[in-house]
Amino acid sequence: MKKIGILGGGQLGRMLQAEAQQRNMPVYCMDKSENAPASLYRDFYTIGDIRNYDDVMSFGADKDVITVEIEHINLEALRDLEKAGKEVYPNPDALEIIKNKNIQKSFYHSIGIPIPEFSSFNSKDEAVIVFEQWKNRLPCIYKSAEMGYDGKGVRTIRAIDDVLALDDIPGAFEQRIDIDIEIAVMIARSPDGNYVLYPPLAMYFDPENHILSEVYYPANMGKNIVEEMNRIAVKVTETLNICGLCAFEFFITSSGEVVLNEIAPRPHNSMHISMNNAHCSQFEQHLRAISGLPLGSSVMEKAGIMYNIIGEEDDYGTAEWTGWHEVMNLHEVYVHLYGKTEIKPARKMGHINIVGDDLSKLKEKLLTIRQYFKNRKS
Amino acid sequence: MKKIGILGGGQLGRMLQAEAQQRNMPVYCMDKSENAPASLYRDFYTIGDIRNYDDVMSFGADKDVITVEIEHINLEALRDLEKAGKEVYPNPDALEIIKNKNIQKSFYHSIGIPIPEFSSFNSKDEAVIVFEQWKNRLPCIYKSAEMGYDGKGVRTIRAIDDVLALDDIPGAFEQRIDIDIEIAVMIARSPDGNYVLYPPLAMYFDPENHILSEVYYPANMGKNIVEEMNRIAVKVTETLNICGLCAFEFFITSSGEVVLNEIAPRPHNSMHISMNNAHCSQFEQHLRAISGLPLGSSVMEKAGIMYNIIGEEDDYGTAEWTGWHEVMNLHEVYVHLYGKTEIKPARKMGHINIVGDDLSKLKEKLLTIRQYFKNRKS
Repeated sequence: MKKIGILGGGQLGRMLQAEAQQRNMPVYCMDKSENAPASLYRDFYTIGDIRNYDDVMSFGADKDVITVEIEHINLEALRDLEKAGKEVYPNPDALEIIKNKNIQKSFYHSIGIPIPEFSSFNSKDEAVIVFEQWKNRLPCIYKSAEMGYDGKGVRTIRAIDDVLALDDIPGAFEQRIDIDIEIAVMIARSPDGNYVLYPPLAMYFDPENHILSEVYYPANMGKNIVEEMNRIAVKVTETLNICGLCAFEFFITSSGEVVLNEIAPRPHNSMHISMNNAHCSQFEQHLRAISGLPLGSSVMEKAGIMYNIIGEEDDYGTAEWTGWHEVMNLHEVYVHLYGKTEIKPARKMGHINIVGDDLSKLKEKLLTIRQYFKNRKS
Repeated sequence: MKKIGILGGGQLGRMLQAEAQQRNMPVYCMDKSENAPASLYRDFYTIGDIRNYDDVMSFGADKDVITVEIEHINLEALRDLEKAGKEVYPNPDALEIIKNKNIQKSFYHSIGIPIPEFSSFNSKDEAVIVFEQWKNRLPCIYKSAEMGYDGKGVRTIRAIDDVLALDDIPGAFEQRIDIDIEIAVMIARSPDGNYVLYPPLAMYFDPENHILSEVYYPANMGKNIVEEMNRIAVKVTETLNICGLCAFEFFITSSGEVVLNEIAPRPHNSMHISMNNAHCSQFEQHLRAISGLPLGSSVMEKAGIMYNIIGEEDDYGTAEWTGWHEVMNLHEVYVHLYGKTEIKPARKMGHINIVGDDLSKLKEKLLTIRQYFKNRKS
């Protein structure tokens, strides 16, 4: 078995590890905190900074395959590990394009993938100038070029005052799409070019903080829309030569157009439902893909709702959950917590998967979960 | 959440931990080896001897609930922990009866549960005397009173020479039943007396070493037989006031009679298939039961075969598995390995669950697995 190093030890690393350790795969995580979620697997955990060249190099030295569970990695080290003969998935060139949303957008543009209209800028001064082109099309969306995830670095721009309040960093203004629904598509691709697509899922975000709130399967939509999303997913992963998982987030407009929002070349929150309704979970799939093992079946036999457990506005201190009895009284409901002791507003603490034959019954169970499963305020 | 201590850190402890940690349940294991399977969860693992009074007492001191994954525990310590207000599941009186097969048999006899005819003895000298009653009914089965599991302490007795070769320890001769099939039934019972029964499974043993080799679901048999097995499982667990899981192993005779072989008040190898075909796996179920949480659904929606991965006669050294590609090419096949580096003949190294709609197709997959998934001989 190839020895795998995962850069990052958050919940994605922890859930990759759960699948890896079940099969005794030699998989190790690195992250800077002593108690990151993946440190549960203490003997397979290294403390180090994924943005530090030396830490990444020394972690990678005895591994055969390097992968990531977050995009913000020291790229120079990844490139040097690749030169030293390590397999690095996703490849550093793809990662460089993806980690910067401005570069990501230009790339899509260059290969003809439909995305929202945008204007990028490198500073607040430039933003003020660029804003001139947008002031008659407000509101528009601001996105910072880097470090934007879980709604961070995303703002609605309604007036020049909103522009003046931005940080002085690279970013872009983006056309606000008239969204009918947001859809996630996951592709897994092997080094030999084989790929598997998971069925599309409907994503619902918290309107306040733009964090993913719930995911539904099935997501009903026309066959043409599904084919177009799948075509884009295949085209982008093949062009970037991405191996392992790659999550695609699409806007479907009210007129039925498919517009690509962004991608993440790794396991993704939108596909957590696969842990309980798919033949092969996204975490098992990623490990298969980057190890050069046969890809697993992406069939989802059951309807599913994934509900994110997220710190609320006034949630601070040690997390302690109420509602265990009520939630565990519901059948085919699976609680996944990430081992984070401290809760904070907007922090992802876990998720609950609800699966079954009938989506409407799952929605009833979701109501119960929403009502009872909460952090006890200290 | 109640703080749970598991005495024993083998594969059952490891798989209990996988379910516990997914939900951030505060669960800890103790075993004497530094690298026992459950030591994967290093921060939740204590090194200590489960047969040593002081070790068990000190491990239990800060726990709310004590449970076991093996029967051979220091009972005096369990009793003292119970006196000190800890919940102990299964209770020490039940454990005392079950850990000694001679006492177990007498107990079944006393409450009218059908078991094979038997004659117990306390020494080899007694065995020779008792053998007089059996010499016209050979072959019969010898079972040692204690420490008998995975076929250990079980012999076929064909002549007085076999008796003279026995160890000088307590044991019994037992009628050799004309077995049509061996069936496992699992019950989970809460402290409040609620219980859930899993559907019966067919068990197949290695004829050489008596170790469980494969388990099949569904196991086709008459409704009367199922009802009788369930009746016995409920009666025994209620009489012994067992909380948590209790596995029942039955002989079904060629004339359709149900005969109880033995029980194990804990997760059991026969129910590993539940990890991939049941709403609630046996490991989640045990944690629910002993925590006083609602019991989960024992529905098995798919057919399943569990195949035990066991060290073969000439398997020694570091385990290294061939056939990953062939096995992972099969869909709905789940490999579970226990983190044991050293392989030995008859050692349980892991298991593979095969699930799907059609048992005959699962049997084809099993043939592939048997052919390819093997330890590479060093």
